[in-house]
Amino acid sequence: MDLKSKIRQIPNWPIKGVNFKDITTLLEDKLVFHELIDQMCRQFEDKQIDKLVAIDARGFLLASAMAYKLGTGLCIVRKKGKLPCQTIKASYQKEYGPDTLTLHHDTIKPGEKILLVDDLIATGGTLLATIQLVEKLAGEIVGINVIIDLPFLGGSRKLNKYDLKWLVSYDSE
Amino acid sequence: MDLKSKIRQIPNWPIKGVNFKDITTLLEDKLVFHELIDQMCRQFEDKQIDKLVAIDARGFLLASAMAYKLGTGLCIVRKKGKLPCQTIKASYQKEYGPDTLTLHHDTIKPGEKILLVDDLIATGGTLLATIQLVEKLAGEIVGINVIIDLPFLGGSRKLNKYDLKWLVSYDSE
Repeated sequence: MDLKSKIRQIPNWPIKGVNFKDITTLLEDKLVFHELIDQMCRQFEDKQIDKLVAIDARGFLLASAMAYKLGTGLCIVRKKGKLPCQTIKASYQKEYGPDTLTLHHDTIKPGEKILLVDDLIATGGTLLATIQLVEKLAGEIVGINVIIDLPFLGGSRKLNKYDLKWLVSYDSE
Repeated sequence: MDLKSKIRQIPNWPIKGVNFKDITTLLEDKLVFHELIDQMCRQFEDKQIDKLVAIDARGFLLASAMAYKLGTGLCIVRKKGKLPCQTIKASYQKEYGPDTLTLHHDTIKPGEKILLVDDLIATGGTLLATIQLVEKLAGEIVGINVIIDLPFLGGSRKLNKYDLKWLVSYDSE
């Protein structure tokens, strides 16, 4: 199945010049959604993963089904103030200034094999902050799994020491 | 499996007097997560559901796995400004004032059988706004599925014309 053709592009959203990749059209069709999850899981099914780390919020939409299919646990990374128990923190740069991601302090045990899941890599800031968090808890990152890479924004290049897999790539906005 | 014993309670979060029900402990253990999703799906597996509607953001963590297992599509309800395509809107009252939920205008076709999924029912405001959105698109709501009901906050009573299923209930904070 050609997943790329199922992604809806929204011109000039959220700002002028950006051609936003809308993945909701992959989710709402039951056959496309099933095939998407199967294709993502196939890339890491031989890695004996313990837990997926899902990035708020579109990562949640993929990682939950993947954790169910792969038989792993599911951990979540959220913006500061959203997780109720004690957290560890990592700051990163967003378009309009710094932001902070958090992870529950006890959600990963040392040495657990971890796969990071999000919808898209752009500049890579969110994934780099997530890597910091997981490595602070001594989780072993076995890979990073996304639907879409936007290599012209440089994120995937910064992540090249990790086993990064994507299904769809675009050469420009 | 006694799911209730796996839910972590956080005293005085997010405000004094609230005993927050932290479901992340249900997700991070692979056996508990699998059993949770199986128990939720079992309640509606005979209903020939077309699509799940997941409520941002904890609903995403359940609905994705459920949609995969049930073989349905997955639609998402998000706060205003988060969905990139044309949306329909519904306002609701939160603790500190009004807020607005949105749904893509074309995500549900008239007559499709819809199951709403969230983690918890408290006052029911979010679910009532979501019902408005789904019914505006002429979706047929066949049920509402949550992990936790807090009946003393009155939400489940307001939703009693719908087939509402929960797995765990608390009598007080």
